[in-house]
Amino acid sequence: MTRPVKVAVVGLGSMGFGMARSCVRQGYQVFGSDIVTERMDSLRNEGGAAETVDAVAASLDAVVAVVLNADQTETILFGETGIVPKLKPGAVVVACATVPPDFARSMETRCQDHGVHYLDAPVSGGSVKAGEGKLSIMAAGTHEAFAAAQPVLEATAETVFKLGDTAGSGSAMKAVNQLLAGVHIAAMAEALTFGMTQGIDPQKFINVISRCAGTSWMLENRAPHVVAGDYTPHSQTVIWPKDLGIVLEAAKGSGLEAPITEAALRQYNKAVEMGLGHEDDAAITKVYARSAGLQLPGEG
Amino acid sequence: MTRPVKVAVVGLGSMGFGMARSCVRQGYQVFGSDIVTERMDSLRNEGGAAETVDAVAASLDAVVAVVLNADQTETILFGETGIVPKLKPGAVVVACATVPPDFARSMETRCQDHGVHYLDAPVSGGSVKAGEGKLSIMAAGTHEAFAAAQPVLEATAETVFKLGDTAGSGSAMKAVNQLLAGVHIAAMAEALTFGMTQGIDPQKFINVISRCAGTSWMLENRAPHVVAGDYTPHSQTVIWPKDLGIVLEAAKGSGLEAPITEAALRQYNKAVEMGLGHEDDAAITKVYARSAGLQLPGEG
Repeated sequence: MTRPVKVAVVGLGSMGFGMARSCVRQGYQVFGSDIVTERMDSLRNEGGAAETVDAVAASLDAVVAVVLNADQTETILFGETGIVPKLKPGAVVVACATVPPDFARSMETRCQDHGVHYLDAPVSGGSVKAGEGKLSIMAAGTHEAFAAAQPVLEATAETVFKLGDTAGSGSAMKAVNQLLAGVHIAAMAEALTFGMTQGIDPQKFINVISRCAGTSWMLENRAPHVVAGDYTPHSQTVIWPKDLGIVLEAAKGSGLEAPITEAALRQYNKAVEMGLGHEDDAAITKVYARSAGLQLPGEG
Repeated sequence: MTRPVKVAVVGLGSMGFGMARSCVRQGYQVFGSDIVTERMDSLRNEGGAAETVDAVAASLDAVVAVVLNADQTETILFGETGIVPKLKPGAVVVACATVPPDFARSMETRCQDHGVHYLDAPVSGGSVKAGEGKLSIMAAGTHEAFAAAQPVLEATAETVFKLGDTAGSGSAMKAVNQLLAGVHIAAMAEALTFGMTQGIDPQKFINVISRCAGTSWMLENRAPHVVAGDYTPHSQTVIWPKDLGIVLEAAKGSGLEAPITEAALRQYNKAVEMGLGHEDDAAITKVYARSAGLQLPGEG
């Protein structure tokens, strides 16, 4: 009888919690860590193990890092109480935050210095798919990193894109995806409000455009939030200044101008300045509505 | 036995020719008109009627105007040899060009002054669907205009969106669609070239992004042209300065800022300045590639 796979999930926000649950469902021993201790209790209620991540670090097979950004990833891996120096050789770090490709490459090197594998593994799909084990993962890393991460990938992903044999390519593809997703949400907002100025009702906008050449995945996903006047943060506005910032930094480093990304970023920055950072990112529509004096569904 | 429906199609470019053929297939008597006389011969070879549009104007049931813009539409309807004054009362003009909503409203009024119905009917779907009779038509007009246009709609459209009972709403929805479609093509170009700077091969870009949240209808349709290095003009770059100009003019008139549309328009203008106006609009990717010193597939 083989011992169960031991996985730690660090960062139990909606994505991390969903991924942890998917690992529990697969029969793994799952240890959770989060600065919000209630989330660790919730995971235990869902079948997570009793011990803390720190207490079992030396016996872990994999650490899944599902934190907000590069800074937080570096802290949990190599900070004062960082976990990598405590891992056994051959363990793997599965790094899911959206980070600059260069950062992913440097984390891989530092993990390898400790005999630990690193999988550059940003995710796409949202918290619902995380809980169902049906994420898309844009992964890059050595053959050994993929092999060590296989149980985690199996439990959490419907689709694993193998993008390269060193870290960086996963984060690069994620940046490409975020460029498009961020621009498409902002373009949806611009078009929906433009339509309103021309007498087009937002629900009719969705009905027609979703069947025409102007449609996008993000339009079909986010425009209904505007129609419902429901800005419950499935994905917060505040992630976009960060993610589009990563895109523009990398683009600049390569001498590529990205004026459409820049225009979208300015709109997200305005949304954050208006206090909409922790609303659903469809709230960028309010930036346009405010500037043109339009009343969105559910307002007023 | 009822006499066959008599339809004139004015403007036999790829869209107009396809629509004319769809009308022929439906058993209508179809008269074609174009400044390129060879196109009129081609239509006759495909079953079009022998007479000129002018010779039969008084007996036409419908005139389908499939020209480039508002100026050309006005010329063929009300110019020196304009057709509207020659039509019988109760005939209908089906106006398919992308035009400002205000222009559509003024054309409707002027047609009604002659006892002629006017259907504001911009189309979406491209020349292939035009030839198959499977266009999407964003239509607005009076009940009588819809009734008179019914045979044309039946022959040419898979989907007719009924957007209002006066002209203008069809053109408004088309402008909304063009805002999105134009931005999405430019965003595709920005993201594809950004990916290249990060080591992502364009074919891999399509494989991954088309299955992620960053996808759009236009990305899936146009990015393959870039991968193939094939800029055969299925839809020319030069239409975008016109169509996005219509959007920005209408937005400005309503006090709405549209910074993402503006950024996309600047990129299309650069493409036209680079001599790419009559290439497929996927050629906007060359603007980015040139600025960053990248070599696209099929180049060099």
